[in-house]
Amino acid sequence: MIVTEYIEFQTHGNADMIDITPDVTEAVHGSGLDAGIAVVFAPGATGSVTTIEYEPGLEKDMKWALERLVPQEREYAHNLRWGDGNGHSHIRASVLGPSLTVPFTEGHLILGTWQQIVFLDMDNRPRNRKIVVQVMGE
Amino acid sequence: MIVTEYIEFQTHGNADMIDITPDVTEAVHGSGLDAGIAVVFAPGATGSVTTIEYEPGLEKDMKWALERLVPQEREYAHNLRWGDGNGHSHIRASVLGPSLTVPFTEGHLILGTWQQIVFLDMDNRPRNRKIVVQVMGE
Amino acid sequence: MIVTEYIEFQTHGNADMIDITPDVTEAVHGSGLDAGIAVVFAPGATGSVTTIEYEPGLEKDMKWALERLVPQEREYAHNLRWGDGNGHSHIRASVLGPSLTVPFTEGHLILGTWQQIVFLDMDNRPRNRKIVVQVMGE
Repeated sequence: MIVTEYIEFQTHGNADMIDITPDVTEAVHGSGLDAGIAVVFAPGATGSVTTIEYEPGLEKDMKWALERLVPQEREYAHNLRWGDGNGHSHIRASVLGPSLTVPFTEGHLILGTWQQIVFLDMDNRPRNRKIVVQVMGE
Repeated sequence: MIVTEYIEFQTHGNADMIDITPDVTEAVHGSGLDAGIAVVFAPGATGSVTTIEYEPGLEKDMKWALERLVPQEREYAHNLRWGDGNGHSHIRASVLGPSLTVPFTEGHLILGTWQQIVFLDMDNRPRNRKIVVQVMGE
Repeated sequence: MIVTEYIEFQTHGNADMIDITPDVTEAVHGSGLDAGIAVVFAPGATGSVTTIEYEPGLEKDMKWALERLVPQEREYAHNLRWGDGNGHSHIRASVLGPSLTVPFTEGHLILGTWQQIVFLDMDNRPRNRKIVVQVMGE
């Protein structure tokens, strides 16, 4: 059985980190399924999904790490062509990836105690986002 | 229901980026399924699958970013042991990952307008590649 | 049909790389399923799952690469708040990601010849780990 849900929210952009664990949990509970997977997917080319301990320290550290890995200030070929200044956003999103698959059993996501599912908005401006949660199982 | 398809193509290696969205789309349509997931997987240790806005600017920027993250010129322990000079290829492939899961509904992949599914060939030479697309759903 | 298995082992921490391919293979064989996916997931916020050619050279190179990408020695905001000194572990785990999905057909994982499934323990100390392998298919 398959249930497809959407999570909608606003972000501040610029590596804003949004905890979507409650929404994914609700999608799994709402499906009534016992065991299976929740596939979380970010449509769009400037967002990523991963897990992290969601706390203000790591929010700051992740912004620092993304800037270290793929700095904002550089003459990206993307920016020269399109003028939207978000070349770094695209590369960051591709490196971290748009997709996450989390198994569940007995109706509960199998996450660590300090592990949350987060959306990272890599774009260089506030965005409205609509993330997919597809629950598949039995 | 599960359908397993293969996509075959040649690459130039050296972070060559191949847009495989049409092939994944075709695999989903060909399955006749309404809702589910397409799992795209790169067998082999020097290739990755992710999404990106597929345009020449970001192709260049991704090559730059991969060189920044994991530079080619270094005495990799892998190269010292095996002499094939592609230590950087292996590490890049592991960091970006070989697997991507994309949900679909009503027979259509849920992708952003400017978001394509790409294979990145991290190896240091042209390769023939055979990528798996497994469609699972109802 | 869905089968959920767990893999338990000890690690040395500090980017220790554990080859779990035999365990994932066994979970697939044990399920008796012909085709589908094996979802490998690391509960907890300081571990990652990916694929690599598992050999001592790349084990060293991966430790070097993780230190280059996200260095251990830095005043992480996470460390200032919590004092456990593993801010770099969290960021590394989030960047590489906790989840991997590998398709199988005719009861065999579709992996490259030199491609193994590995768990990377990013934490700064030895850990007991319990990794999930969920097999879903027909």
